[in-house]
Amino acid sequence: MSQPSEAICPLCAGPGGDIVWSDDRLRVILAAEPAFPGFTRVVWNAHAAEMTDLDAAGRAHLMQTVWTVERVQRDVLHPDKINLAALGNMVPHMHWHVIPRWRDDAAFPDAVWAAPRRAAPPRVVDQTRYVQTLRDTLQRAVR
Amino acid sequence: MSQPSEAICPLCAGPGGDIVWSDDRLRVILAAEPAFPGFTRVVWNAHAAEMTDLDAAGRAHLMQTVWTVERVQRDVLHPDKINLAALGNMVPHMHWHVIPRWRDDAAFPDAVWAAPRRAAPPRVVDQTRYVQTLRDTLQRAVR
Repeated sequence: MSQPSEAICPLCAGPGGDIVWSDDRLRVILAAEPAFPGFTRVVWNAHAAEMTDLDAAGRAHLMQTVWTVERVQRDVLHPDKINLAALGNMVPHMHWHVIPRWRDDAAFPDAVWAAPRRAAPPRVVDQTRYVQTLRDTLQRAVR
Repeated sequence: MSQPSEAICPLCAGPGGDIVWSDDRLRVILAAEPAFPGFTRVVWNAHAAEMTDLDAAGRAHLMQTVWTVERVQRDVLHPDKINLAALGNMVPHMHWHVIPRWRDDAAFPDAVWAAPRRAAPPRVVDQTRYVQTLRDTLQRAVR
């Protein structure tokens, strides 16, 4: 098994999903995860594998963005829990998963990467309002 | 299914593992996860479910501790990847998983919460040196 180098990294080659907001250092994208509506990723633009490969200012900027996404998910989507993770085992290019979770979703209380526990229809969320609020809030909050 | 309230929260009732280092706001513990040596958790002492329940100073302090654990894992254990996650679906009391991953561990490249892919004997790590370096570095680095 090999990990992709920068030359063939999918998060270097493309955005990785629909871009909600971006600045010169990172982008916020909607994940294509139909079982988990609201699943959002924050992707660092430069190819870096680990948080400790970023300098302190970069880490702070990235996490401020993650906290902002979490805040908007809580305010607009009202999930039972937020899950945050930076794994990168398959794509070692820094990206944070910000995942609203509900007690009746397919995998709860397990991680979304565990086998599904139930055939749960995805919760219906107001995606338009979520995206608009996320964009507005990031524009205002993230420096 | 119900989530534990503060009154019966296991991370309010006890440390959650062997404490490597602590200060007045958080503790760093060794997770009892034999398949994943070096698996470490950073537990916020106060009962809070989400990162956005902490103030900015608390979030920064917690993440500085997580970055320090990551740095020591990279320096001492030389894993192929670091995994970071704050899930809390089962125990909604803020704790970060900081997990050194190797390409030949039981679940790689999946998350540790996925079904194992192989019966891999856990990697032999120098736990004594890891714990001592972690303690010394946290003492010096985290304010």
